[in-house]
Amino acid sequence: MTLKVISENRSFGGVQAVYAHRSEVCDCDMTFGAYLPPQANDGPVPVLWYLSGLTCTHENAMTKGGFQEHAARHGVAVIFPDTSPRGDGVADDEAYDLGQGAGFYVNATRAPWAGHFQMYDYVLSELRSLALDALPLEDCHGITGHSMGGHGAITMALRNPDAFTSLSAFAPIAHPANSDWGRKQLGAYLGDDESAWALHDSVLLMQQNGWKGDLLVDQGMSDNFLDLLMPEALASVMAKRRQAGEIRLQAGYDHSYFFVNSFAGDHAAWHAERLMRPHAGRH
Amino acid sequence: MTLKVISENRSFGGVQAVYAHRSEVCDCDMTFGAYLPPQANDGPVPVLWYLSGLTCTHENAMTKGGFQEHAARHGVAVIFPDTSPRGDGVADDEAYDLGQGAGFYVNATRAPWAGHFQMYDYVLSELRSLALDALPLEDCHGITGHSMGGHGAITMALRNPDAFTSLSAFAPIAHPANSDWGRKQLGAYLGDDESAWALHDSVLLMQQNGWKGDLLVDQGMSDNFLDLLMPEALASVMAKRRQAGEIRLQAGYDHSYFFVNSFAGDHAAWHAERLMRPHAGRH
Repeated sequence: MTLKVISENRSFGGVQAVYAHRSEVCDCDMTFGAYLPPQANDGPVPVLWYLSGLTCTHENAMTKGGFQEHAARHGVAVIFPDTSPRGDGVADDEAYDLGQGAGFYVNATRAPWAGHFQMYDYVLSELRSLALDALPLEDCHGITGHSMGGHGAITMALRNPDAFTSLSAFAPIAHPANSDWGRKQLGAYLGDDESAWALHDSVLLMQQNGWKGDLLVDQGMSDNFLDLLMPEALASVMAKRRQAGEIRLQAGYDHSYFFVNSFAGDHAAWHAERLMRPHAGRH
Repeated sequence: MTLKVISENRSFGGVQAVYAHRSEVCDCDMTFGAYLPPQANDGPVPVLWYLSGLTCTHENAMTKGGFQEHAARHGVAVIFPDTSPRGDGVADDEAYDLGQGAGFYVNATRAPWAGHFQMYDYVLSELRSLALDALPLEDCHGITGHSMGGHGAITMALRNPDAFTSLSAFAPIAHPANSDWGRKQLGAYLGDDESAWALHDSVLLMQQNGWKGDLLVDQGMSDNFLDLLMPEALASVMAKRRQAGEIRLQAGYDHSYFFVNSFAGDHAAWHAERLMRPHAGRH
């Protein structure tokens, strides 16, 4: 599998690249961003996965999230996957929150989505292998994300604790099985049997599995979408489980990238500290 | 004159706002961004003006430049003006580098531009007065900008040394009177008499006036537009004049916001240090 270079820009002494490649899993061409810090010139570096939210491509967080400065300081790479398969042959919906730009990080089993919408396997397996093969990365991973991407980060990590060393999220869709940001999409992609949805719900997975380490969640208290995100459900189940971690309720912050980049430094430091611990998942 | 709030987003403990207002000078509605750091809650703060480049609005640098973090640390406000008048009644050109999005920070004297394209007076006088009236700002100013905005910053400061305490630029169009990024626009806006252009050319103004203090210029060495920007002409005239300052030639960097935000922290610190000096232009 080869990567096609779409762009490369020097950034904080490293390189912010955009690559395209053929995805077997999604059966279409896919695009992703990868920031390699200057330390990657001297050898492989750990990697932080950043999953984006509804309507985003690989580009939004890459240009607005401000992660490069922090990643360069800590010597961590950041990969920004797209949020869905795309292209003329790929199913879509008129709504902003279903179809292209709204993959929800699941493997769709229902028409018309099943043929391409396999974002869970794409991020967790195909893109991970591809990136490890093609880029100077250690097989040592943290994962974070925003909104729908925070949902993706928590659900992937809780279901695959061996695959990730560190975990955080920005304003995650915490309880999609019980939210209008979730029920519609999980129904469309996975069908009406809600037992299948439980594997893609952070609150239900936290209740069931917990997380092996600690996790950091930031949530703006002036977020217009609090009713859809349901951070209180995640906080509640974490407290009941005695789950280690921090849920930080940030006064005055909304759901925008101005929120994300205000705390990007804290999240980068959180991951770097855990990824850099001796033998902390580094292979 | 009242400001209409277009948006307000919490950012690094402060507020990134966007305002619209009627401009008498440009005879149209104008939009600008203003970042107020948390220190502005306790009293007026100095202000850094950031002038943007060709094709940009008030928004590009505000979302991609990464200035908020640094401004919050130093307690400096940042104002992001638009790059031209806009609207249905405002003249435009099919080219990206003339008309709307390309005001070049001059007062146009020629049709069809003279009626609205008065960006020099707009930034230097009207918006400055408006911002000082409406926002918690000290009458103490630094100015910077990128590309066409770097040109605007240097030319405004060199012509108005009492109006600005500190000066820097990112990849400025340094010698527009001698560049295809300049001759076309200065001719269109100001007419064919090149003596009028000299008041809007950083190299010629530096030769004539110098700058009262020191200035910081960053220029990427992998910038695709080096031939149009002519940093060598600025470096040469600064050296000949024994002008204090730093021209930093940054290996590998291009003309993008990935370049700008990589050095935004250095520029913010440069301005903050000079703006915060006791009585350094603070009224």
